[in-house]
Amino acid sequence: MKQLIILCFGLLSLNSVKAQTVDYKADSTALRAIFDTVLNRGQCHQNLFELCKDIGHRITASPASYKAIAWGKSKLEELDLDSVWLQPITVPHWVRGSIERLDFSCKTDKLYISNCTALGGSIGTEGNVLAGNIVEVRSWDELDALDPEDIKGKVVFYNRPMNPSLINTFAAYGDCSQYRVYGASKAAKLGAIGIILRSVTLRIDDNPHTGIMYYEEDDIKIPGVAISARDAYNLSNMLKSDPNTSFKMKLSCKTLPDTISYNVIGEIKGSEKPDEIILVGGHLDSWDIGEGAHDDGAGVVQSIETMRLFNLLKIKPKRTIRCVLYMNEENGNRGGKGYAKYAEEYKENHIFALETDRGGFSPRGFSVDATDDQFENLQAFKSLFLPYYIHIIKKGYGGVDIGPLKKTGDVCLVGLMPDSQRYFDFHHAKSDVWENVNQRELELGAGAIASMVYLIDKYGI
Amino acid sequence: MKQLIILCFGLLSLNSVKAQTVDYKADSTALRAIFDTVLNRGQCHQNLFELCKDIGHRITASPASYKAIAWGKSKLEELDLDSVWLQPITVPHWVRGSIERLDFSCKTDKLYISNCTALGGSIGTEGNVLAGNIVEVRSWDELDALDPEDIKGKVVFYNRPMNPSLINTFAAYGDCSQYRVYGASKAAKLGAIGIILRSVTLRIDDNPHTGIMYYEEDDIKIPGVAISARDAYNLSNMLKSDPNTSFKMKLSCKTLPDTISYNVIGEIKGSEKPDEIILVGGHLDSWDIGEGAHDDGAGVVQSIETMRLFNLLKIKPKRTIRCVLYMNEENGNRGGKGYAKYAEEYKENHIFALETDRGGFSPRGFSVDATDDQFENLQAFKSLFLPYYIHIIKKGYGGVDIGPLKKTGDVCLVGLMPDSQRYFDFHHAKSDVWENVNQRELELGAGAIASMVYLIDKYGI
Repeated sequence: MKQLIILCFGLLSLNSVKAQTVDYKADSTALRAIFDTVLNRGQCHQNLFELCKDIGHRITASPASYKAIAWGKSKLEELDLDSVWLQPITVPHWVRGSIERLDFSCKTDKLYISNCTALGGSIGTEGNVLAGNIVEVRSWDELDALDPEDIKGKVVFYNRPMNPSLINTFAAYGDCSQYRVYGASKAAKLGAIGIILRSVTLRIDDNPHTGIMYYEEDDIKIPGVAISARDAYNLSNMLKSDPNTSFKMKLSCKTLPDTISYNVIGEIKGSEKPDEIILVGGHLDSWDIGEGAHDDGAGVVQSIETMRLFNLLKIKPKRTIRCVLYMNEENGNRGGKGYAKYAEEYKENHIFALETDRGGFSPRGFSVDATDDQFENLQAFKSLFLPYYIHIIKKGYGGVDIGPLKKTGDVCLVGLMPDSQRYFDFHHAKSDVWENVNQRELELGAGAIASMVYLIDKYGI
Repeated sequence: MKQLIILCFGLLSLNSVKAQTVDYKADSTALRAIFDTVLNRGQCHQNLFELCKDIGHRITASPASYKAIAWGKSKLEELDLDSVWLQPITVPHWVRGSIERLDFSCKTDKLYISNCTALGGSIGTEGNVLAGNIVEVRSWDELDALDPEDIKGKVVFYNRPMNPSLINTFAAYGDCSQYRVYGASKAAKLGAIGIILRSVTLRIDDNPHTGIMYYEEDDIKIPGVAISARDAYNLSNMLKSDPNTSFKMKLSCKTLPDTISYNVIGEIKGSEKPDEIILVGGHLDSWDIGEGAHDDGAGVVQSIETMRLFNLLKIKPKRTIRCVLYMNEENGNRGGKGYAKYAEEYKENHIFALETDRGGFSPRGFSVDATDDQFENLQAFKSLFLPYYIHIIKKGYGGVDIGPLKKTGDVCLVGLMPDSQRYFDFHHAKSDVWENVNQRELELGAGAIASMVYLIDKYGI
């Protein structure tokens, strides 16, 4: 019985801690006001339209990326914040160029022209046509099991589909994207002359999906392209019917010298604890196909909307709220690293950072990279989000851009978790356009972010 | 302290009841197998393609509806069930005809041609052009406040938008759809000659949305059409600038004599309690624009998939599992009523019925129309669904088709609750096509349904 009573006290005290921490009535009223405003008078969808249609895709260092910086700055300036500024950073400058061509020939298909897209950071073929045979693998194990003689002088075709069994599609992403990121480096060491990647997507369609690849310093650099899931299926069948299936590849992509770009930052100074910074952010750059609508136009407009909501609802934050529109998340993360470097240099105290970079879909929760205490404190907010069908506050990844902030201290890093089912249909592909973002889903995400920022400002972490 | 102990026992016993009820390990393995199968080898999306593209929209009594019946029957017959049959029902037969024209004229816009769609069940204009002036209202109160002289000989324009603040969009639907359903009847009593309805949707676009309207027996019947949200906005502005804005309307829709159609039914006989019937169903008919992809092709293929999963996973149910593809949900519910009448007549014992008719979106939970005991029993399954991000089991509406089963006894009625944000973008509109249904979201819904049916079969209710 004593044990039982202790257990009971445990249960009760857990409840009472939560009850003491949160003023449920006042907070639920505040959250309702935030969601009502964003759903009735939100500007996310309209702002996203401008970013997607007036500017379009905006890879780091492209002319469009500078237009996006000017646009982001002006959007924040419209909001009557305490300050808006640009933070210079050195960025890589990769360009796709105009030529992308990949075709296959085998006994049965004389010429099969594939729909392809160079991987971000890939070298090109420098005006030449790269040609040869193809060796298909589905994993590192299959690659390692091959005789290097069977790889030498060929392209390696990484034909690895995402695992459809995983309910959170991001859990399936990492398993596949590693072949995109490291596939060329690994294949080059074995004598390959290029790589072809089945696009990292769960959808069987004709869209190739790009994304970053890296060379190691001592690598012989070989080019990499992605083909669509359907083309990967077809190529695999060609190879089954004729192992001597050959390819021809011509790519005009190349890397230019590093240059200067900017993070766009706006802030509302805290009235009581201005030195405690709460950050909300997404990334302004995108890949150079589609419009970067979900990735990460959605996050950009949701971050701006959070600042707008504070303004519109006349919420005077106790702590400093800072919106960061990062540059260069896609191919270098120089924005995220640069921002953290400044923060360290100026001994800024970031207590909390929330990144939104998983698409403008219905928000389902938050993934949290934090200390146990911080994590426990966040749990107290859970019931406040349930009316909005947001039910998850779990340990997990914060995000690429906010990640480097870790080195400045025990910052609580949080990633917004939208419904993930459709994300990889559009991710890094030409289908990532404004039309594929639902207004309400986008707005609800903004409401979730603004609500979390509101609560952290009120209670700390 | 005594109270505390009692409270504690209460808390603990609640937990232990749940723990006793559900074999978490075995059940979570079974649910994982169901979800794995549907995500890796599911046929929902392909079946939906056939229903949408080979057959298309399929309003009750249309040639396409009979093709859909034959298709549904053959799909169930492929599954090696114990029996598949058609259940005849008498159905209404409304046809749109080829002419739908609605235009407006005012001082500033000489002729504004609207994109319109007759409301389901509306009379037409019998070859004539209906013309006159327009009176705009936003509510019954506004209508009732008018002098009947201001309504007489005019059309009533019900310009009522859905409330965007409600997170569950279905909660906003009823408030608007009542004007579609009863608007003509009410306006006719006040002397109106027709009604124009702002489409019941949350999206501002150019798609008009149809849906059922009813006349009372002693009504003077007047026609009803829906216009798109954008046209409603424009018409409202025209009326502001010129209250004498006039309309011309020509509709060729009409109601033909009742005829015969069919519910399509397939069942697996229970091995231990064959008299206890667990029903899963959606409706085969649709409106006569778009392809009825979300409404309710999704529900049809998910219901078929449930039967297929039992088959594929070699689950031998203890109770009888019955799949019902209802006819005539949209304009009469004769399928639902007819099915319940048979069930009553043959003294069938339905213990549980699950309807899926809210679109093929990510499943979020179940809404339950049941006794308190039944509802409590369902709560015990909650933790089994959490790995699939399905977290809601709440009291609420079951569905139109299964509703009439209530009169056969204490049947536990359950409606699948998918994410509702996008549903009314497509509902009853030409945009409700296969392309707007995401494969994984559709499949996850099927997994949720099959899992619930599996658990009810195992534990009863």
